Amino acid sequence: MALIVQKYGGSSVADADCIKRVARRVAETRQGGDDVVVVVSAMGDTTDELLQLAEGISERPGPRELDMLLTAGERISMALLAMAVEELGHLACSFTGSQAGVITDAAHGRAKIIDVAPGRIRSALDEGAVVIVAGFQGVSQETDDVTTLGRGGSDTTAVALAAALGADLCEIYTDVDGVFTADPRIVPAARRIPAISYEEMLELAANGAKILHLRCVEYARRFSIPLHVRSSFSRNEGTYVTADAEGNVMEDAIVSGVTHDRSEAKITIEGVPDKTGEAAAVFTALAESGINIDMIVQNVSAGDTGLTDISFTLPAADSATALHTLEGIKDRIGFRGLRHDDRIGKLSVVGAGMRSNPGVSATLFSALAAAGVNIEMISTSEIRISVVVHIHDLEAAARAAHSAFGLDGDQIEAVVYGGTGR
Amino acid sequence: MALIVQKYGGSSVADADCIKRVARRVAETRQGGDDVVVVVSAMGDTTDELLQLAEGISERPGPRELDMLLTAGERISMALLAMAVEELGHLACSFTGSQAGVITDAAHGRAKIIDVAPGRIRSALDEGAVVIVAGFQGVSQETDDVTTLGRGGSDTTAVALAAALGADLCEIYTDVDGVFTADPRIVPAARRIPAISYEEMLELAANGAKILHLRCVEYARRFSIPLHVRSSFSRNEGTYVTADAEGNVMEDAIVSGVTHDRSEAKITIEGVPDKTGEAAAVFTALAESGINIDMIVQNVSAGDTGLTDISFTLPAADSATALHTLEGIKDRIGFRGLRHDDRIGKLSVVGAGMRSNPGVSATLFSALAAAGVNIEMISTSEIRISVVVHIHDLEAAARAAHSAFGLDGDQIEAVVYGGTGR
Repeated sequence: MALIVQKYGGSSVADADCIKRVARRVAETRQGGDDVVVVVSAMGDTTDELLQLAEGISERPGPRELDMLLTAGERISMALLAMAVEELGHLACSFTGSQAGVITDAAHGRAKIIDVAPGRIRSALDEGAVVIVAGFQGVSQETDDVTTLGRGGSDTTAVALAAALGADLCEIYTDVDGVFTADPRIVPAARRIPAISYEEMLELAANGAKILHLRCVEYARRFSIPLHVRSSFSRNEGTYVTADAEGNVMEDAIVSGVTHDRSEAKITIEGVPDKTGEAAAVFTALAESGINIDMIVQNVSAGDTGLTDISFTLPAADSATALHTLEGIKDRIGFRGLRHDDRIGKLSVVGAGMRSNPGVSATLFSALAAAGVNIEMISTSEIRISVVVHIHDLEAAARAAHSAFGLDGDQIEAVVYGGTGR
Repeated sequence: MALIVQKYGGSSVADADCIKRVARRVAETRQGGDDVVVVVSAMGDTTDELLQLAEGISERPGPRELDMLLTAGERISMALLAMAVEELGHLACSFTGSQAGVITDAAHGRAKIIDVAPGRIRSALDEGAVVIVAGFQGVSQETDDVTTLGRGGSDTTAVALAAALGADLCEIYTDVDGVFTADPRIVPAARRIPAISYEEMLELAANGAKILHLRCVEYARRFSIPLHVRSSFSRNEGTYVTADAEGNVMEDAIVSGVTHDRSEAKITIEGVPDKTGEAAAVFTALAESGINIDMIVQNVSAGDTGLTDISFTLPAADSATALHTLEGIKDRIGFRGLRHDDRIGKLSVVGAGMRSNPGVSATLFSALAAAGVNIEMISTSEIRISVVVHIHDLEAAARAAHSAFGLDGDQIEAVVYGGTGR
């Protein structure tokens, strides 16, 4: 008898029919003889509706009270799911994050899980119940107040519970069939990846793949929790994320997947004096403003001007703050000017096979050149190459890279995205 | 500096504007230098909407999960009210029933408060915060599960907190201006009662006055908590409910108020053998079916038949169960037949002055006779007389009684019921 943690997102529990379908799925797993702990998000748009209510009251609602408000969402979905499971003749018991022992720090809205004390979950499992836990929420160790975990919170709850309970598997149910070699809306030849390593999944998640949040994958890697990302709308196998899996769909493929990211912008600081410590001063100032820098490129000094250009990418939403910060240190640093470009896209190719295969960069750059795509910036890690291109070239670049690394499928396998009733 | 508990019902927090108005009222009290603890119900129809969601899942949702679901309602309203109070520049802190230390038994849906441990409320008050508490909910001492208190629950929460905190006053805000000598929709001459005793208020609440729930008044009496029932839509003084107040609007009035109740039905058991123990057998069987009997009348045997009729009233909703129970013991008791009448109404006149004034019954019966109203059943307590009449006669009976006991106002004082914006 195994212990399985299943996580269902908001679209999987959007209405009564959805909740009943999830309940059937949960009941089937239970009937198979396994213990089941279900982590559930708020129904459909509930969280947005609650945020709108808050906006009607206050432009900047206090974070403690906002968390108190938002946690009503999972309370509703988890109670309804418990009723639906009971309706199918199984014992069911729902727990809030606090009741489930999800203990966090006190950072409202983006709390980190410090510990999980799953005593009540264990007791309920021992009594034969299906346990249903509110995702996205916990309780602060310090203040005893209710907290939310922020983006990717429900996935992280599921993995944290799986780790604390020593679960055999953590299934992340979503509205797509798993992790794909690229986003099928952009690369029609994309295929499902049957299995992938934590490392590769981390690179995919960090570089634009939206299916799993970085944080959840990091947690799973740290505690070696096998993940199975799959659709709640079909019976198909999805993608297994484990320590030893490699994501190559084809044996000779070096690259497991291609991701794209439209959320970044590029800032270029022109005419920076090419002296030791200037770059450090710039990025220290940006860090103090709370800005996460992604890629950085510093050109060699042009001729003997003693001046250089520094370009970096950052979340487009942070551009205004960054430009303001840089203007503030302009005189101290003595640079000439700032250029800002939010018409960029980032393309990344990820694959553990890169470690043992030289020439991956060359293959990528040649493919992009052949597709007429100009590369503006480049950055690499051990198992990833990312390039910044003009936003208009991003989709063509993704298709070219996908094809160049032999990932294109024969399109016999139907790619299903979104939708209902499957 | 006083400590005041204020309770606002669902219609007082129905939307963002209502919540802001309540917040201004709370802030004014705080600015006056008093500590404030606010008990709040779920917004408007939230509870009904949550019940509908549950009905979409299960015809008989489990009581534990139903309580988990319903308690989301106050969580939303209390967080929004806290935000609104903070928006006005005051510290505010919301607590669930569990966090507020409202400890109950494990009877989901109708839990009783066993104890209140208001440690967190005290700490928050000491820090200068307005404390906002979810009404209607608590946590089971036995199972640590979330419970709801059932009807009148939020009023009871307010009184229980007032008792535990040693509050100076418990204000119950509602959508009418206080307790009236009769329902102004039926008796236009009805007037607000400035002050009334717990005893009288208990009789009014038990006999159809809907403004305060019996349970809340009982709790207030037990702990001697002064109540002030008033409108959240006006600045008018409402009705004080205290130990020593007497509700007579006019000095020479014997009766404080007139109530009516349309929720009961009457069952007559015909031809019961007039032997010792027969009535006991009947009412034991009904009690075992969980039916609350209100009035009972047994006629003298007709002639020497040795048979008698027993009539009783009960909540109309329980009629089917009662008739079924009685049919089941028909042969054992040996009665002739059953008659059921749900076209009845109960009129009650309540007043502490009855104790020292004989002839109250005579005044009532004469007034009803003059109004052409036939009396079907009579029951009395020390400070109350109730009669059952045909439902068509109920309103005329209420007006006749109100007038006969000198309660009619000069109608200068505006009677405000329901509505908004005042």
